[in-house]
Amino acid sequence: MPKPEPSASLDPIRHSLAHLLAAAVLQKFPDAKLAIGPTIENGFYYDFLLPEGQKFAPEDLKEFEKQMRKFVNQHLVFTGKKVTETEARNIFKDQPFKLELIEEFVKEGKELTVYETMDSGYSPNTRGSGMTKEKDSILHSPSSILLFSDLCRGGHVENTSEIPADGFKLDKIAGAYWRGDEKNPMLQRIYGLAFNSKKELDEYLAAREEAEKRDHKKLGPQLDLFIFSDLVGPGLPLWTPKGTLLRNLLDDFVWELRRKRGYLKVEIPHITKKELYVTSGHWDKFKDELFRIKTREGHEFAMKPMNCPHHAQIYARRQWSYRELPQRYANTTMVYRDEQTGELGGLSRVRAITQDDAHVFCRASQVKEEIFKIWDIIEEFYGAFGFKLAPRLSLHDPAHPEKYLGTPEIWNHAENELRSLVKERGAVAVEAIGEAALYGPKIDFMGKDALGREHQVATIQLDMNQPERFDLACINEKGEKERIVMIHAAIMGSIERFLSILIEHFAGAFPVWLAPVQAVVLPVSEKFSDYARKAHGQLLAAGIRAELSEADESLGKRIRAAELAKIPYVLVVGEKEEKNGSVAVRSRKGDEGENKVQDFIEKISGLTAQRAI
Amino acid sequence: MPKPEPSASLDPIRHSLAHLLAAAVLQKFPDAKLAIGPTIENGFYYDFLLPEGQKFAPEDLKEFEKQMRKFVNQHLVFTGKKVTETEARNIFKDQPFKLELIEEFVKEGKELTVYETMDSGYSPNTRGSGMTKEKDSILHSPSSILLFSDLCRGGHVENTSEIPADGFKLDKIAGAYWRGDEKNPMLQRIYGLAFNSKKELDEYLAAREEAEKRDHKKLGPQLDLFIFSDLVGPGLPLWTPKGTLLRNLLDDFVWELRRKRGYLKVEIPHITKKELYVTSGHWDKFKDELFRIKTREGHEFAMKPMNCPHHAQIYARRQWSYRELPQRYANTTMVYRDEQTGELGGLSRVRAITQDDAHVFCRASQVKEEIFKIWDIIEEFYGAFGFKLAPRLSLHDPAHPEKYLGTPEIWNHAENELRSLVKERGAVAVEAIGEAALYGPKIDFMGKDALGREHQVATIQLDMNQPERFDLACINEKGEKERIVMIHAAIMGSIERFLSILIEHFAGAFPVWLAPVQAVVLPVSEKFSDYARKAHGQLLAAGIRAELSEADESLGKRIRAAELAKIPYVLVVGEKEEKNGSVAVRSRKGDEGENKVQDFIEKISGLTAQRAI
Repeated sequence: MPKPEPSASLDPIRHSLAHLLAAAVLQKFPDAKLAIGPTIENGFYYDFLLPEGQKFAPEDLKEFEKQMRKFVNQHLVFTGKKVTETEARNIFKDQPFKLELIEEFVKEGKELTVYETMDSGYSPNTRGSGMTKEKDSILHSPSSILLFSDLCRGGHVENTSEIPADGFKLDKIAGAYWRGDEKNPMLQRIYGLAFNSKKELDEYLAAREEAEKRDHKKLGPQLDLFIFSDLVGPGLPLWTPKGTLLRNLLDDFVWELRRKRGYLKVEIPHITKKELYVTSGHWDKFKDELFRIKTREGHEFAMKPMNCPHHAQIYARRQWSYRELPQRYANTTMVYRDEQTGELGGLSRVRAITQDDAHVFCRASQVKEEIFKIWDIIEEFYGAFGFKLAPRLSLHDPAHPEKYLGTPEIWNHAENELRSLVKERGAVAVEAIGEAALYGPKIDFMGKDALGREHQVATIQLDMNQPERFDLACINEKGEKERIVMIHAAIMGSIERFLSILIEHFAGAFPVWLAPVQAVVLPVSEKFSDYARKAHGQLLAAGIRAELSEADESLGKRIRAAELAKIPYVLVVGEKEEKNGSVAVRSRKGDEGENKVQDFIEKISGLTAQRAI
Repeated sequence: MPKPEPSASLDPIRHSLAHLLAAAVLQKFPDAKLAIGPTIENGFYYDFLLPEGQKFAPEDLKEFEKQMRKFVNQHLVFTGKKVTETEARNIFKDQPFKLELIEEFVKEGKELTVYETMDSGYSPNTRGSGMTKEKDSILHSPSSILLFSDLCRGGHVENTSEIPADGFKLDKIAGAYWRGDEKNPMLQRIYGLAFNSKKELDEYLAAREEAEKRDHKKLGPQLDLFIFSDLVGPGLPLWTPKGTLLRNLLDDFVWELRRKRGYLKVEIPHITKKELYVTSGHWDKFKDELFRIKTREGHEFAMKPMNCPHHAQIYARRQWSYRELPQRYANTTMVYRDEQTGELGGLSRVRAITQDDAHVFCRASQVKEEIFKIWDIIEEFYGAFGFKLAPRLSLHDPAHPEKYLGTPEIWNHAENELRSLVKERGAVAVEAIGEAALYGPKIDFMGKDALGREHQVATIQLDMNQPERFDLACINEKGEKERIVMIHAAIMGSIERFLSILIEHFAGAFPVWLAPVQAVVLPVSEKFSDYARKAHGQLLAAGIRAELSEADESLGKRIRAAELAKIPYVLVVGEKEEKNGSVAVRSRKGDEGENKVQDFIEKISGLTAQRAI
């Protein structure tokens, strides 16, 4: 979902609304026990424990929202004060969760503060009458009525008049364990959305609706691209024929771009002895995420979490003359990470990740040319999908040298090299400290999709450390051994993650070159089945991925099914089409009229060859 | 290596020669300690411990061989006798290994026998004088001289006149631990070869020499196809660009044959939760060979040792109408076996095995058609390499039902089905009891290579058990749920194993369509480098895998290098070729004269497209 950039004032508004929600809940459920109510992305939530047997209903949300709006219009004031432990325990004597927090804060030596929401006697009728905010927030005269108190570190509006009354909305109810621990009581959580205006809220809701329609976790199975099996396990997608075709079309595209630039394919096993990663330096840094194996003979093996050390071993198989460099090895293959189940999500985070990985082994003097070649590939590839790219320079964090291999000198040299390359390319890159790879700095590419969301996509990484560790070299013009450098490059990165982005970017309506089924032929009735079959055969013979939808259901139903399957071209055939050797073409753009079969074939083949979007 | 079928008499001959070898060794090294001397494939060996600091030299073998031949011509007799423990200990009082064996045999309650080799006084000069063999073996008159005694169960010729004096040869010296245990003393082993005639021996030696020249373990690195890395570990080949190209060309060929027959590609992760294999039945039967993984959350995972359960899960993703069957899923992917290090050998047995696997999910009524389609693919594929195929019906062993899934009824049904298919195909299949897969019977194809060696190559397997276990079904014409069957089919089987066979079949000289480098252009001198570069560019542009061998070394040296790399076409260019826009072609057949570049391109492209051999 696009994140509307929150103005600085949004956090106090959201935090204040959480308090108003709690106050509204207490009006209707005076025995509700309050847990916590923080701000979150796009809004806030508050967790409650209702008396045994009571539950929030969707109608309650409407009522709470109405009451919250009333509070807002009352121009309530928020004020904080420090309290002693005794005072706090007294204020929250009926609130066991708050008492638990008080005990904890005291133990940690934290100050206790209470924020109070007061009605200062301001009448909403006088709103806009010239009264200033400052005047509103004059400290509670004895006539002020205390509406709600909460144990809280603060960060509120001073007066609810600062809250746009139509900029928020209670969103949904969910269950949540106290402190996220399933051994604790299950609470009821109310989520709220809050923005600076109704317009911002509406935009967010519209974008969310659009994103939900595009959710790859829903579209993937609906379009029959991939599935998860309980027996195989979470984070391990199984790729159906259509999904596999899609993956291969994308991978073939990357390969076409690489092949032209002198890359060669290599292949490697997905396991290795531990020793490979001890030498590369990955074992220490990655060992928690490694799927580790003890063999029957007691050796330690691991499933590969990356391919660079294997590829480095292929390079290391013989001595190289400088004349034979660069060696450019490409390999689309799976890597594995022992991710925690709770962190898995659709294709975005999986345990078996297909990488379109490549490693260039070259001389230091060849780095610029090789990186620019990769940069060209990235621009050509993402351009084909309409993604806008922005480079980011991902650097090491000098405050945490323990997170990286190699010396500060090597790092500074590599980072300066990338910096000057970015400049020479005429690009502007944000610099991100601490985002480097274990072995070197990166140029990462951030891509903006159709919904304006930003994703990290391709990456180019400069590695001067693994060549040291694996003693990778060439013999230079002087007959001397010369240390080489490695460039790591992935275009899609993780094909799974890229597909999750692509499915949502296109809302499953892939351009014709990528669509697993490019066209479907529908006879208007059984009478034209023979002709439909003939036309279908012609399409197949021309290499078009076509299906035939036999007339065993109504035409309308079949057209709707084809549209649901997001097939780019629906070809209806009846008497006229049979007579003319044609098809009636409906595309996503609408009715494209009658086309001779041959003309249609040429059009589709052309669009496919161009990878048109 | 081709195994000359040993006649029944070979074992006694080989065994007797082992004794004669020991006798010859004792003549020269009277203090040698004797270990054991069994027969082996193609011959025999004997293990000796020489006094500290003494070693057999290659010249010794010649001397021993000469002495053995002398013994043979002396028409020595072999006789056996039972002895008591005391007698045996006395006979072998200076032979510590024999004493150890005596102790062991006594403990096991075995009889002790000693075989003696005697000179019965027969003079070689009278050979062929009409004396019969029977007469030779007349039991030792008091004048007989005992030449050699061994602790031995027997199985000798009666008289060395039965041994063809020119049918044996001492082969080599090697080290071996007493009883194969590295904690024991290291012995010196002398290997001998022995056959029924000099002709057989010579044939064996020639075949062995040829096989050694073709050894894929030698040719693979020499042709730069694959390597093993100590850091990655044994049994885990790394595929270089040339080897990867070869693999992909072969896999593309299989895919071309499959695609035409309605197969679809699928893709799967290389790991799974244990539950998948518990359900499929593989966990119990294969658990020792599985690479098993405990995740950080404590779940049990395994690397896949086969693909069928994963593919079954893809089929199981939705309900199928009978009209949508067969579903044919193809997937070239790696499977893993925790093989013991000692059992690994080049590409023949590896830990990461690439399978060109496919599974057909179909109705029982479709089995014949689907199996015949696979059979067609297998014949077309192996025909392209000149392999002769013989089908073998691999059946279950009714004496060991615990080794298989499912009931005897299911097995009999499936086996009868395959039997009748083989018959209908007009083929003759050997039946092999106990060679079935865990889940069903197979038609395995045995292929004969250029050296006449037989290898198990492709396989078609009929599986009625996994569909039960995974509840795989379709909805039939009557709207009822109908159990389906699975057909497992691999064309190359293990690509690694197939490549080990193919490399040796072609002795690394691959046909042009498979050769990683199809042609190399060599300018006779630097003067023609520009023209060579131009011709090379033309070849590349036409899609020919061509290299350029610059004139930095002598032409002869470069031609020899190209021949060593087994490049099918060596194209030399000089003044005449530059003038004519041609190349001088040398192929494996010899000089093919001057070809216009365009003509050469057309010839090579044609041979490649036809997959000519």
